[in-house]
Amino acid sequence: MTSAQPNPEERLRELGIELPAAPKPLAAYVPAVRAGDLVFISGQGPLKDGQVVWAGQVGADLSVEEGREAARLAVINALAALKQEVGSLDRVVRMVKLVGWVNSAAGFYQQPQVINGASELLEEVFGERGRHARSAVAAHTLPLNFAVEIELIAQVQ
Amino acid sequence: MTSAQPNPEERLRELGIELPAAPKPLAAYVPAVRAGDLVFISGQGPLKDGQVVWAGQVGADLSVEEGREAARLAVINALAALKQEVGSLDRVVRMVKLVGWVNSAAGFYQQPQVINGASELLEEVFGERGRHARSAVAAHTLPLNFAVEIELIAQVQ
Amino acid sequence: MTSAQPNPEERLRELGIELPAAPKPLAAYVPAVRAGDLVFISGQGPLKDGQVVWAGQVGADLSVEEGREAARLAVINALAALKQEVGSLDRVVRMVKLVGWVNSAAGFYQQPQVINGASELLEEVFGERGRHARSAVAAHTLPLNFAVEIELIAQVQ
Repeated sequence: MTSAQPNPEERLRELGIELPAAPKPLAAYVPAVRAGDLVFISGQGPLKDGQVVWAGQVGADLSVEEGREAARLAVINALAALKQEVGSLDRVVRMVKLVGWVNSAAGFYQQPQVINGASELLEEVFGERGRHARSAVAAHTLPLNFAVEIELIAQVQ
Repeated sequence: MTSAQPNPEERLRELGIELPAAPKPLAAYVPAVRAGDLVFISGQGPLKDGQVVWAGQVGADLSVEEGREAARLAVINALAALKQEVGSLDRVVRMVKLVGWVNSAAGFYQQPQVINGASELLEEVFGERGRHARSAVAAHTLPLNFAVEIELIAQVQ
Repeated sequence: MTSAQPNPEERLRELGIELPAAPKPLAAYVPAVRAGDLVFISGQGPLKDGQVVWAGQVGADLSVEEGREAARLAVINALAALKQEVGSLDRVVRMVKLVGWVNSAAGFYQQPQVINGASELLEEVFGERGRHARSAVAAHTLPLNFAVEIELIAQVQ
């Protein structure tokens, strides 16, 4: 099923996901910059309506499952930034690269499982085009105590 | 005022900023690599004349304001590396992407405010072309105990 | 000697390095994605035959020299992923950018020396074309307790 080329905007509707307004940068930068056919998207946290939904360290304050939800919400915000930059997610050629930082307790080693919350959504929405290269790493703290921060590079038409 | 297209080399002079010699890599790599019209600049710390000016954790050893100064100095070193690669900063089409790591005390959440020290300088020097995508994250330690480390991608003519 | 343009596949043989099968992703992503002439390679750890060879914090559990070995092994895995994507390493035009995260003890500042284990191998194998831009940073923990994680961007024909 994921080998088909889904229509991403339609898939979002089927999944009941309404993209928010593009996240307002926390500071002196912009949500996304296009250079040639690559769009570089700023690091996003698990914010909804301007509120941090998932805060704290995964492996201490939050479970892996909660961390996955945080990663899913952060990547939805990244898609909102991407859509604002290019007009429609149907113009995505390929999700190229994702970096996921997990706010991690000492001795927590399951960052890949947490960041899967983001990676799996990209595959659900974009099918094969959603399969990306990725680094999942740890931080001992993050801006606003985000449980995760996700940055993304996409190739577009 | 930032919507105008300033002449970056002239703006640096107006700001009284003299770019240093391109930073000598700490190890087996180079300060910048160009691939097509993108220049990837190596991670830079708050060094001046080969000395670390700002060392330690922001939120413990250093204030947010000191962290901002560290970020500003690190991005000046990044601009020096970029200038060495392309000859003149006037050839910059767009600052594309910045990643800022803040050497952070446990429970410190203001990485965006710290990295603004770098982002605001880019906008002062490059105007609209200086507005970039960005991730601000934390590390519990950094090379040479740098207070911040900044890496940059620029699009050039 | 490194100014010559070596044949990378031949150099690997001379160095006695046999690339493993491309690393199996730990999760819902792929080892490498090509966009134009850039290949983005997923973060790699010091795994061999599916086992973590170097685990723990450099500066506490591991020495700098052991960390260097971990970085060398991680970048060999990155080269395996790159080769799978493009067919032969002889198609590499330039190693563009490397990010190295070092699983670091508190107060450990020698991340550049550790990541040199990866950078020096790239120069041994690719000569001048192997000289890359780089960021070396710290994490207090990493997936599977990897001693290092390495991600890479390469430019290819």
